[in-house]
Amino acid sequence: QGRGGGVVDGVKVPVVRLNLGEIAEATVVAVLPVCGAGDRGKWVEEAPWECAPKGDFGIVESEKDWGRWVALPAWEPVMRVKRGGVVVAFNDARALPWRVNRWYKEESILVMVDRERKEVEIDDGFYLVLSEDELKVERGSALKEKSVSTSLGTVVIVVRPPREDDENEIEVEDWE
Amino acid sequence: QGRGGGVVDGVKVPVVRLNLGEIAEATVVAVLPVCGAGDRGKWVEEAPWECAPKGDFGIVESEKDWGRWVALPAWEPVMRVKRGGVVVAFNDARALPWRVNRWYKEESILVMVDRERKEVEIDDGFYLVLSEDELKVERGSALKEKSVSTSLGTVVIVVRPPREDDENEIEVEDWE
Repeated sequence: QGRGGGVVDGVKVPVVRLNLGEIAEATVVAVLPVCGAGDRGKWVEEAPWECAPKGDFGIVESEKDWGRWVALPAWEPVMRVKRGGVVVAFNDARALPWRVNRWYKEESILVMVDRERKEVEIDDGFYLVLSEDELKVERGSALKEKSVSTSLGTVVIVVRPPREDDENEIEVEDWE
Repeated sequence: QGRGGGVVDGVKVPVVRLNLGEIAEATVVAVLPVCGAGDRGKWVEEAPWECAPKGDFGIVESEKDWGRWVALPAWEPVMRVKRGGVVVAFNDARALPWRVNRWYKEESILVMVDRERKEVEIDDGFYLVLSEDELKVERGSALKEKSVSTSLGTVVIVVRPPREDDENEIEVEDWE
């Protein structure tokens, strides 16, 4: 799950930084459909569901055409999703429910969601929801308090962009 | 251009074997639209032309939706194509104009084509054409003899599938 990536205690979703050359560490890659956060969830459901790599070359053959795709390294949480995986591209990390220092307004992030797991089940889990007409990631406990039992899907991984300088800050301190 | 790949003298198109973990050696990957050879060229022109990776995460945003995609390592000939790249998936290598031993009937191949270079210019170059209702790769000189001056595109690379055992045969001997 990504050199330099940080996972803070209690946050059950891996947050990884995509390093330049990260795809490097994987023997396979996942190719996933992408939705923009600006699409307000309209396309999250619409994006192709079938995107398992097939055959010798790992060609992705989805059940419908789609125009935005991204290749991700074969991180375990990514590869575990066999069907219904989708990536939502956010311009910054304000859509995340936890407070982070410095980078959260500056860095774009990718949030990969498993659309086969829409039910809000786990208190410490994170879910993609449409809230006040905006796509947001919310904690299971927070949704339960608001009696929200269905989400757009469970967040499986949050990806931060590659860092040019690639130095190894202590990422965990970035997190509350 | 791929460990274990072989390029024979006079054949100006790299033929590489995709090794398990090959994408590994690349710091970036290309995500390209795929056509089946069975489509008989119908879709070669139709496949999206815009597929340059963009932004921090290398998201591919094509000008039209498409259902089949493949991730390829950042081999130089692949990355050189900025626009108009398309991959044709063949069930075997019989579409190639040169004679190869053993593997040519058994292995599926991918042929990546640059659709911005349709003109048959170079004698030793290879071009994708529709010949007798089948997609084939032909040598520039052979096309010129038949007064064919336009192709579906110039072949930039031929990709062979990963080999399970991954031993290093002397590939060049496979080639006439």
